[in-house]
Amino acid sequence: MANTFKDATASDIDAVMQRSWQAFLLYRKSSLKQRADFMRQVAVELENIRGEVLPVAMKETNLPEGRLSGELSRTIFQLNNYADAAEAGDWLEARIDTAIPGRTPAPKPDLRKMLVPLGPVVVFGASNFPFAYSTAGGDTACAFAAGCPVIVKAHPAHEKTSEMVASAVLQAARKAGMPEGIFAHVHGRSFETGKALVTHALTKAVGFTGSLAGGKALFDMASQRAEPIPVFAEMGSINPIFLLPGKLEQDAAGIAALYAGSITQGVGQFCTNPGLMFAIESAALDVFTGTLSSALQKASPETMLHPGIAKAFWQKRATALEQKGVHMESTTSLEATEVQGIPTLASATAEAFLSNPVLHQEVFGPYSLLIKCKDTAEMLNCIRHTEGQLTATLMATDADMKAYPEIADAVQHLCGRLIMNGVPTGVEVCLSMQHGGPYPATTDSRFTSVGADGIKRFARPLCFQSFSDQFLPAELQNANPLGIWRTVNDKLTRDSL
Amino acid sequence: MANTFKDATASDIDAVMQRSWQAFLLYRKSSLKQRADFMRQVAVELENIRGEVLPVAMKETNLPEGRLSGELSRTIFQLNNYADAAEAGDWLEARIDTAIPGRTPAPKPDLRKMLVPLGPVVVFGASNFPFAYSTAGGDTACAFAAGCPVIVKAHPAHEKTSEMVASAVLQAARKAGMPEGIFAHVHGRSFETGKALVTHALTKAVGFTGSLAGGKALFDMASQRAEPIPVFAEMGSINPIFLLPGKLEQDAAGIAALYAGSITQGVGQFCTNPGLMFAIESAALDVFTGTLSSALQKASPETMLHPGIAKAFWQKRATALEQKGVHMESTTSLEATEVQGIPTLASATAEAFLSNPVLHQEVFGPYSLLIKCKDTAEMLNCIRHTEGQLTATLMATDADMKAYPEIADAVQHLCGRLIMNGVPTGVEVCLSMQHGGPYPATTDSRFTSVGADGIKRFARPLCFQSFSDQFLPAELQNANPLGIWRTVNDKLTRDSL
Repeated sequence: MANTFKDATASDIDAVMQRSWQAFLLYRKSSLKQRADFMRQVAVELENIRGEVLPVAMKETNLPEGRLSGELSRTIFQLNNYADAAEAGDWLEARIDTAIPGRTPAPKPDLRKMLVPLGPVVVFGASNFPFAYSTAGGDTACAFAAGCPVIVKAHPAHEKTSEMVASAVLQAARKAGMPEGIFAHVHGRSFETGKALVTHALTKAVGFTGSLAGGKALFDMASQRAEPIPVFAEMGSINPIFLLPGKLEQDAAGIAALYAGSITQGVGQFCTNPGLMFAIESAALDVFTGTLSSALQKASPETMLHPGIAKAFWQKRATALEQKGVHMESTTSLEATEVQGIPTLASATAEAFLSNPVLHQEVFGPYSLLIKCKDTAEMLNCIRHTEGQLTATLMATDADMKAYPEIADAVQHLCGRLIMNGVPTGVEVCLSMQHGGPYPATTDSRFTSVGADGIKRFARPLCFQSFSDQFLPAELQNANPLGIWRTVNDKLTRDSL
Repeated sequence: MANTFKDATASDIDAVMQRSWQAFLLYRKSSLKQRADFMRQVAVELENIRGEVLPVAMKETNLPEGRLSGELSRTIFQLNNYADAAEAGDWLEARIDTAIPGRTPAPKPDLRKMLVPLGPVVVFGASNFPFAYSTAGGDTACAFAAGCPVIVKAHPAHEKTSEMVASAVLQAARKAGMPEGIFAHVHGRSFETGKALVTHALTKAVGFTGSLAGGKALFDMASQRAEPIPVFAEMGSINPIFLLPGKLEQDAAGIAALYAGSITQGVGQFCTNPGLMFAIESAALDVFTGTLSSALQKASPETMLHPGIAKAFWQKRATALEQKGVHMESTTSLEATEVQGIPTLASATAEAFLSNPVLHQEVFGPYSLLIKCKDTAEMLNCIRHTEGQLTATLMATDADMKAYPEIADAVQHLCGRLIMNGVPTGVEVCLSMQHGGPYPATTDSRFTSVGADGIKRFARPLCFQSFSDQFLPAELQNANPLGIWRTVNDKLTRDSL
């Protein structure tokens, strides 16, 4: 790709961060309604550029129009959904404990606490989601909701799309009367640009979606700063599926068809793609493997997001397939080019899995590895030796759940989201979603990057002690003028004091 | 001090961590009531040893009986308070979004989320709070509430006290039928013991209260593990006080008396001790300085927690006093020994403060530095160049607040708790408390170590997708059998579904 945009220099970045900080000093005092109105205006501006931006995104990402249009709609939905949540104010965790002046041995002071924004947030978008996890995606929306300005580093794989989305955000900022500097968009293909952003003293948090190597590098830089700052890096996952015996017995072919769809969806380019499956050897497993193999043989190779991702897919696939004990079960029978991903199913024994860390690694693309266990004890052992994941899935009948409680129990340690009899692909945007999980799925399992709880990544509690009502933020005033939920003397209520 | 207890070896620690992990597998499934009952039993056992443990603690810490007895009561209160909070379940952040099977283009699955425990938590207690921030203190109580086993490394400065408290916790664990390994107590004076605990693969989080150097070292080790883990280190603070002109004019002598008490309370050995004061030169400031100086001159030197802390006090005090532009305003006129802390007030210009990082450092003990500013612009500049703090305090009339809004605004960036017309010493145990703050006050400003919100440090969200009711945890079942608050389809409610 030609380099259309100039890399930001260290001095460009310093200027950007100084403007962000000035914007923060104003934006942090904005009302919840002002933030929500701004976010809704971003949503409107994105809808306005739909016709214009989709062809550009299609060209940059090789993704089909339907998928991108759906993703843009999701991005707009996210902005509106998080705007509603920001305004409702549950996320503020407002707490009030009223004074007890006559308490002995010492009087109890009036204490009131709520979340306040951290400061400028640097966002690194994902190549596989040019809208929903990029420029005006979930991290940006959460940061705006929290009261933080955002600095986006455009993903080099879709920098024109990013530029157009950034213009829409800036247009919304102007229309909503937001302070200049509330949003900045910088380009940079070099490692140095990212480093300069993360290590700048005025950067107060980082959101990242991408590879383990990329996320870990940012996390390390942020931890080693003079002032360490939080990094929420969502670094992908292989999303293990546990096929329990009863369920497989009941519907091996149906499950195979379901997973053929999930493995190949979007050329396997989802962080929730099922890259690992565990089952116990049986006749039903043979049916499952046979049906899945034949579906994948017929599945078309498809062009991946960009040549770099395709190259990594082929290399990692080759490495995985040449490991000791790994058997190729099936691959597409159709011809493919080097920029395409080809549906592939491999298998290995539990022993091979347990002894070889390479088999635990993600092959980003339409690839899945089936681990054949001798019995549930071996499956349990595999669970205990699997790293942290965004998701895990149980394919199980009620009888399976009762027969193998230790499996249902152990998988809970692995993941942020546990799916019953479904597929991990498809991440619903709602408050109950957990898109996160134990390391290496993310750098902090205590937060989510999807759903309005993601706002809390970019905020911290501030307690006001013995303030008179007039100097408190509206959120904590006696009258509860915003009508938000607050915990008053240990009871949740929307009442005034 | 003689080394009464043997340092734990790496192999001791491995055995301890293996037992903790086994305990975790059971304890994580305990009901909220079981956890609360256990914590309340710990409180009972601590009350049972009051008469026995206080003399030991007095001998080890040089703290007076009244102070230690009060601290023990506070520790008991914390256990009961966090037990109540654990059982009430608000901290679980239970969320339910019900399925919409007919939604287009894709059905919406049923999603339910709640916080689940991280795993074994290693706790490093504080020398200045042998009960409340140590063995069975706030970190331990929060971890138990979250469903995590605890491994305490005894503080070498009060290891006999720690041993007795640990026995009480183990006694409570037996009586409450808790799994073996739910609590472990290890000794270690070497850096290696702490390192072995923090770097052990089965350790999933760390709580620490102590110095910046100690906390930062643990944070670095934890960040550089193969699997990074969260560390909540509360590393102290100099707790700046901003004396605004109107308030000083109104009651210079009264404020001086208030602060003479706060600076010398507990020989200044509190993480919320007011070590830094800012004021604008005026006749009222001269009255304040004169009154405070004369009070400190009359204040008695008192024995510090241990000789190491006293030595550090003398050294840091000497270093601070020999900095360019630093003037000693007053110190006690009474004779002192080298194990005592002596009340001291120093002063410097804003210019000196702005140009010399040594003046930003904590002198742990009864020492405070008054920065004399020419005007509010200079005070504002000082605020902008002050590091993160646990607390900041405004001494201000309503007219001051209206006259200098930019000061009231800027101090909010500095701290986790902002006090109006009071003293920072005295940390109330309640939900609204924020005992935390921007780095270097803590390693993660998004959490607190006092109040039941501290439970969230040791828990992460887990989402259950498409689970049938019978396999969900009670907290997320349709009937809401525990009667907890849950956000159901974006509305907070205690209703069943």
